[in-house]
Amino acid sequence: MKRERIFLFDTTLRDGQQTPGVDFSVEDKIAIAAMLDDFGIDYVEGGYPGANPTDTAFFAKRRTRNARFVAFGMTKRTGVSAANDPGLAGLLQSASDTICLVAKSWDYHVAVALGCTNAENLDNIAASVEAVVISGREAMVDCEHFFDGYKANPDYALACARAAYDAGARWIVLCDTNGGTQPQEILTIVTAVVAAGIPGDRLGIHAHNDTGQAVANSLAAVEAGVRQIQGTLNGIGERCGNANLVTLIPTLALKEVYASRFETAIDTDRLQELTKLSHAFDELLNRSPDHQMPYVGASAFATKAGIHASALLKDPRTYEHVTPESVGNLRKVMVSDQGGKANFINALKRRGIVVGKDDPRLDRLISIVKEREATGYAYEGADASFAILARRTLGHVPDFFHVESFRVMVERRFDANGQLKTVSEAVVRVLIDGEETLSVAEGHGPVNALDLALRKDLGKYQHEIADLELADYKVRILNGGTEAITRVLIESTDATGARWWTVGVSDNIIDASFQALMDSIVFKLLKNRDGAVAAAAE
Amino acid sequence: MKRERIFLFDTTLRDGQQTPGVDFSVEDKIAIAAMLDDFGIDYVEGGYPGANPTDTAFFAKRRTRNARFVAFGMTKRTGVSAANDPGLAGLLQSASDTICLVAKSWDYHVAVALGCTNAENLDNIAASVEAVVISGREAMVDCEHFFDGYKANPDYALACARAAYDAGARWIVLCDTNGGTQPQEILTIVTAVVAAGIPGDRLGIHAHNDTGQAVANSLAAVEAGVRQIQGTLNGIGERCGNANLVTLIPTLALKEVYASRFETAIDTDRLQELTKLSHAFDELLNRSPDHQMPYVGASAFATKAGIHASALLKDPRTYEHVTPESVGNLRKVMVSDQGGKANFINALKRRGIVVGKDDPRLDRLISIVKEREATGYAYEGADASFAILARRTLGHVPDFFHVESFRVMVERRFDANGQLKTVSEAVVRVLIDGEETLSVAEGHGPVNALDLALRKDLGKYQHEIADLELADYKVRILNGGTEAITRVLIESTDATGARWWTVGVSDNIIDASFQALMDSIVFKLLKNRDGAVAAAAE
Repeated sequence: MKRERIFLFDTTLRDGQQTPGVDFSVEDKIAIAAMLDDFGIDYVEGGYPGANPTDTAFFAKRRTRNARFVAFGMTKRTGVSAANDPGLAGLLQSASDTICLVAKSWDYHVAVALGCTNAENLDNIAASVEAVVISGREAMVDCEHFFDGYKANPDYALACARAAYDAGARWIVLCDTNGGTQPQEILTIVTAVVAAGIPGDRLGIHAHNDTGQAVANSLAAVEAGVRQIQGTLNGIGERCGNANLVTLIPTLALKEVYASRFETAIDTDRLQELTKLSHAFDELLNRSPDHQMPYVGASAFATKAGIHASALLKDPRTYEHVTPESVGNLRKVMVSDQGGKANFINALKRRGIVVGKDDPRLDRLISIVKEREATGYAYEGADASFAILARRTLGHVPDFFHVESFRVMVERRFDANGQLKTVSEAVVRVLIDGEETLSVAEGHGPVNALDLALRKDLGKYQHEIADLELADYKVRILNGGTEAITRVLIESTDATGARWWTVGVSDNIIDASFQALMDSIVFKLLKNRDGAVAAAAE
Repeated sequence: MKRERIFLFDTTLRDGQQTPGVDFSVEDKIAIAAMLDDFGIDYVEGGYPGANPTDTAFFAKRRTRNARFVAFGMTKRTGVSAANDPGLAGLLQSASDTICLVAKSWDYHVAVALGCTNAENLDNIAASVEAVVISGREAMVDCEHFFDGYKANPDYALACARAAYDAGARWIVLCDTNGGTQPQEILTIVTAVVAAGIPGDRLGIHAHNDTGQAVANSLAAVEAGVRQIQGTLNGIGERCGNANLVTLIPTLALKEVYASRFETAIDTDRLQELTKLSHAFDELLNRSPDHQMPYVGASAFATKAGIHASALLKDPRTYEHVTPESVGNLRKVMVSDQGGKANFINALKRRGIVVGKDDPRLDRLISIVKEREATGYAYEGADASFAILARRTLGHVPDFFHVESFRVMVERRFDANGQLKTVSEAVVRVLIDGEETLSVAEGHGPVNALDLALRKDLGKYQHEIADLELADYKVRILNGGTEAITRVLIESTDATGARWWTVGVSDNIIDASFQALMDSIVFKLLKNRDGAVAAAAE
């Protein structure tokens, strides 16, 4: 049976730009458009030329090679002709293949937000689409508030969609702008639109995640006939975000109920780049990836020791809804206090350490890990500390350097000018090859001061840690009260882009931080020497 | 029309415990069970007594007042009677109201994981349920892998469900254990189960989020007849998480398509506590709330300047799928909003502070709080600091004492016997009624030392703070990197059993701790003087 084509439309650069906390530069937009284009997305919506200097600059030239490059904007205003509307003129001057016009399709909004009559709004839609078509570009129309509009006045919502269709729009996109529509309502309303004479292969869906169902709403619309899905990378977007293309793409490709009937431009090979795409985008946004994101999250194929772990090892496929390889992700059976021997052997193998299951050193490692986890260490979240501990127990880690002592001081007092001032200072005494160095540093707080002092002078290793950076720092108090145990997790990075986590535990937060900082430096030095360590940290 | 009752089953403490990175202590579990119980959840699954020391200790007594307290465990093994099965005996000894037995319902897993025959598995289900029923407890059965099992062998999956039903299980829960089933498949299969004779009001749904559709799958199952939904707080859980109850509860309550037909135990008043519940849970996990989480996220009702902001100001309701107030959240647009003011007046009233809505000091307080929250303060989680700030701004707080300066030192070195030793010491200079005292203390860490030194000699107030105790201490790093801002939350208690939270924010963890410690002492002194303060802290 011939499978029907579903077109993927990415609005990361337009609706995604509305995400609180996200603000793309022109360079960001160029980089993201290239990622999307390379991955095989059909349409890349770049923004709203004319609305702000960034988007205008971004549309100075075409930014995609294969994907259709889409400019977003408003339909013409009431009272001016399409030829004389400055907004529309800006769109037509942009270096775009496709122009996506947003049109009100809820009569209440036509009155309140546009202040024109229902008939004028229909005229504006038709005239604007015609102007785009005449310019030789592909026209599409985002019917804003379509579902809420349909519930309030179905005839008028349909009339808006029909005005766009009759005027020659390639796509009429039904938008759940406020994000509150339920999947069954989407199914019913889209079915009615198709029944009213607009074919499904001319319809798109634009869903928001305000009830956590943007993916389900998109799929319900496909079920009812639409053949274009709008979404964003990692589901960013206004309020709770848009439909997550990173979830939708593998679902369409790997779930038999869709794959048997539909196809997208994303083939099996590209799908294996999905995890990389998702993480690269987070990297660009400078935020930590969501570990629980479907398909691509670090936990998406992770199993903690428990009722499933041993069965998982017998036959992984029966505990996984798709294979991690199909989306470029990895299976993880986690080291933790309930982990069995097989879990450990696998965890070590992934870190390039091969050990026989009858090796007595393995038993020793397991008992050390269990003992430490009982006192608060969390190796599950600190791969690099686990790797160091395993190498120390099973083989050898060089004593690169030795910290003989440190002292950290925080003082808050009034300075000479009567200003309240807090100063943090750390002094570290390090021994390298029999030679002692004393380093001192001031920092934003005691841990920062200690970090800076520790990395100030490591003698012959100093050039090796020049690119080491502390990327994240987490503190967890494991039990309340005055004798609280503190767990510190530190994430480090270096110029290769590798990231690794280390852990420290103590009733003293400075001491816990010191342990994690030490492990981070030792791991960096190990990694510089051993390809297997480096590979495991990628 | 009489609305049908949907029962809410929370598995945060059981399936949520499988979340990579989440590790509950007994104290955590007690606190979370109380939150869920107070909120009005019908069933609180606490864990697996007998599987690990934490869960066994947690089930030593009943941990809920109203909610049914559920113990999870396996059906009896093949070859032993229910009476002689040690796992089942552990469940029956636990202080639970309900026992949830997990049973394989995919024939392949029966063979591979259990290694028994299909018939033996059915016998195990029936005998285990009967043993629970005889013990006087409510029995329920989680049919593991039900949907995948049904696709592989529908007759056997149904036979498992029927064995549980016939043996007297109150609920038969259909589990999408691997999380890959699509909503339309859920709808079809649940419909078939109901058609096969198991009534919908005896069926539950347990959905996972591996394709981002756990909420949609749960609702599809309700549509097909099930009347119990299993999920977790904030959607934590194995791999990509479980169905998010924080999303499902308001969707069932506020979306007409469900609210017209169904009801839960969560009434309108409790629903307004939803945002607080979600954030309190994240606080307990010591992680940042997801800003884009449906209903409760900080961005869920936020609009950036853009095409929607001005229309939103004309009539907010037309750009919001539900009102933020209905779930205890706030609208965020770039102007001061009336909803915020009413919230403040209410929050103050709860603390015994009455202020008129036109009082200019109220505007000042709101702007101070907003400004401070923008820099990282979280007054939502620090009632006592909010009360102090409000009283300072709206009225008067005595200057009980003044800390002129402090110094904290942490030193790690080898002592005279060659033992590694870490010492923390704090010196505090305090002015009371013109008299200066200098106190020094050693502690388990720098914060503990500072706490002890601060409370060592408060002159004439010393006897008043004798029963003040630091009960909990939380640290959150608000942004990564070396210039990280640290937020410290401290919980204090005294002999009256009152508990109060205070907050401090700084780029220096010691300084942030100092602020929170100071607020804690000031609050204790206020509380000793003012019955309204004391009442609000109960």
